[in-house]
Amino acid sequence: MIKYDIKIAELEERIPYVKGLSWSEGAISTAEWTGVLLVDLLAYHLLPSNQRTNYQALYELLKNAGVRHIRFDGLDMDPTGGAFGSSLPIDLALDPQREVIVAFKMNNKPLTRDHGFPLRIIIPGSIGARQVKWLGQITLSTDESESFWQKGDYKYVLPMSGGKVPDLKGLPAILDYPVQSVICKPSDGQTLKNTGSVSLSGYAFSGGGRGIISVRVSSDGGRSWYEAKLSPASPPAGQGYVTDMDNHYSLKNRSVKQWAWTLWTVEIPIPKDIREVEFVCSAVDSSYNTQPESCSATLNIRGLLSNCWHRINIKFDSSG
Amino acid sequence: MIKYDIKIAELEERIPYVKGLSWSEGAISTAEWTGVLLVDLLAYHLLPSNQRTNYQALYELLKNAGVRHIRFDGLDMDPTGGAFGSSLPIDLALDPQREVIVAFKMNNKPLTRDHGFPLRIIIPGSIGARQVKWLGQITLSTDESESFWQKGDYKYVLPMSGGKVPDLKGLPAILDYPVQSVICKPSDGQTLKNTGSVSLSGYAFSGGGRGIISVRVSSDGGRSWYEAKLSPASPPAGQGYVTDMDNHYSLKNRSVKQWAWTLWTVEIPIPKDIREVEFVCSAVDSSYNTQPESCSATLNIRGLLSNCWHRINIKFDSSG
Repeated sequence: MIKYDIKIAELEERIPYVKGLSWSEGAISTAEWTGVLLVDLLAYHLLPSNQRTNYQALYELLKNAGVRHIRFDGLDMDPTGGAFGSSLPIDLALDPQREVIVAFKMNNKPLTRDHGFPLRIIIPGSIGARQVKWLGQITLSTDESESFWQKGDYKYVLPMSGGKVPDLKGLPAILDYPVQSVICKPSDGQTLKNTGSVSLSGYAFSGGGRGIISVRVSSDGGRSWYEAKLSPASPPAGQGYVTDMDNHYSLKNRSVKQWAWTLWTVEIPIPKDIREVEFVCSAVDSSYNTQPESCSATLNIRGLLSNCWHRINIKFDSSG
Repeated sequence: MIKYDIKIAELEERIPYVKGLSWSEGAISTAEWTGVLLVDLLAYHLLPSNQRTNYQALYELLKNAGVRHIRFDGLDMDPTGGAFGSSLPIDLALDPQREVIVAFKMNNKPLTRDHGFPLRIIIPGSIGARQVKWLGQITLSTDESESFWQKGDYKYVLPMSGGKVPDLKGLPAILDYPVQSVICKPSDGQTLKNTGSVSLSGYAFSGGGRGIISVRVSSDGGRSWYEAKLSPASPPAGQGYVTDMDNHYSLKNRSVKQWAWTLWTVEIPIPKDIREVEFVCSAVDSSYNTQPESCSATLNIRGLLSNCWHRINIKFDSSG
């Protein structure tokens, strides 16, 4: 049994131990991708022509052949001479609900060089490190990718005592994001006129295709909450369901294939005599996962996937 | 736009407003179910015999026929004369990864009357209210079930000001559970001999087939954490993967079809002079969702899905 008994305080003393960049709230984007479903590409090459949509037959074929992972390798090269690579277990790679694609267009234009021209893998709802650019090879394999970024990095584990580093290779490779939300406007530290209320807006997102069904904003540290108005799901929820802008509640079908962020707005009353407010936001996804209040619950050696409540401080100028 | 501005303090003053039973940590169980995949049952009746595993063809067939939901009705009757019922969107009902079954055995014996003899629906990873017993009818439908338990209850929404009740019918029906964990031993309020350490054990679970990849226990309110040892996934993770008991880290494949709880144990050192400790536990699922520290983030009108850190108080008797 492996014991972890480092305290956060100790951790802070040797901050290099938490190795990672501080991405703040900005390292996320959304785009419209065009490509071929990976499952269709494989079915085209591996199944008889009258069975091309029989994904279950493809799954059984691969399973019986001992294939457990689909690996992706890029044509780029790192200083050690290795390409960037990743892989997916076949349950996920072949699941049409996951919509894994070999993409050739971004926002309806051919991929640019920086975005992986001519082909890249898009694994919706998953972290950037799995999305291989300049795709050079797809391999059917018994094991996951040997790539450093698949096996040796982006792992989620408590720091160990004595500064020891656990064997990261045996840990699961991070795939789907947890639920998260951010206040974009106003910005942290801004001073606003107190007009009796303030409008806030931002985005929320969850991984694995789970949609956002609620965003809540508090001006008293989580004692009370305001429900935000959510933008329509984009793209519209599966099977042509329409999300009705006029009906705040038409969120019924946000349970699968929700790959894009959800924008939200809310208006919160501000009493006259208030000079400073900390606003926090927290989202709920279609599996009813919520965000933790602080980073304590998400402590890990690389400081990854920290999705605690986003907090901003706003000053109010009542002089006007 | 609908505003919610009730404070928790107000809520506590009129506690009947949060309408629900207090289930504590006990209202959960796990069993081995035997049945027929719902998708196979429908394919058998609706597809040509040489296409019986072509789930995509079945999906297209239903979609083109305008079917959006599969409804389930029981043969029981409530005081108003209606049967207990539920429904699933077709994306979920037909997804072989979700393993929705029409079950006829529980723990390898025919269902007992109380468990729904002769047939019931099992929707793994989902709340009890969807699992229709004494199954009388399966209906292909454009709309979700009209059942009170599908449309009028078990909804997740902030309490509204002035005691108003929002239109629950338009809200999504709760399906998958969020990540949760419980300390089973020792029990809250127990007094133990201080032998220098204490063993704790319990279960953890997440909905939608997401496995548990970490359970953490703290004896200082979340400032530091101990990683628990997890039992093998049960049943073994998909496709015959074996979870290796000797290797704490062989959790790589706990990302799909993990329908049963995960048992955990941990041993935590207790300094000699300590007389009382609050232990808390928190789990991480394969989408890296964690539990909130308090119930603040999960506030809702029915008090549902409250998965905040489980806390127990233990006294230590150092007299021995």
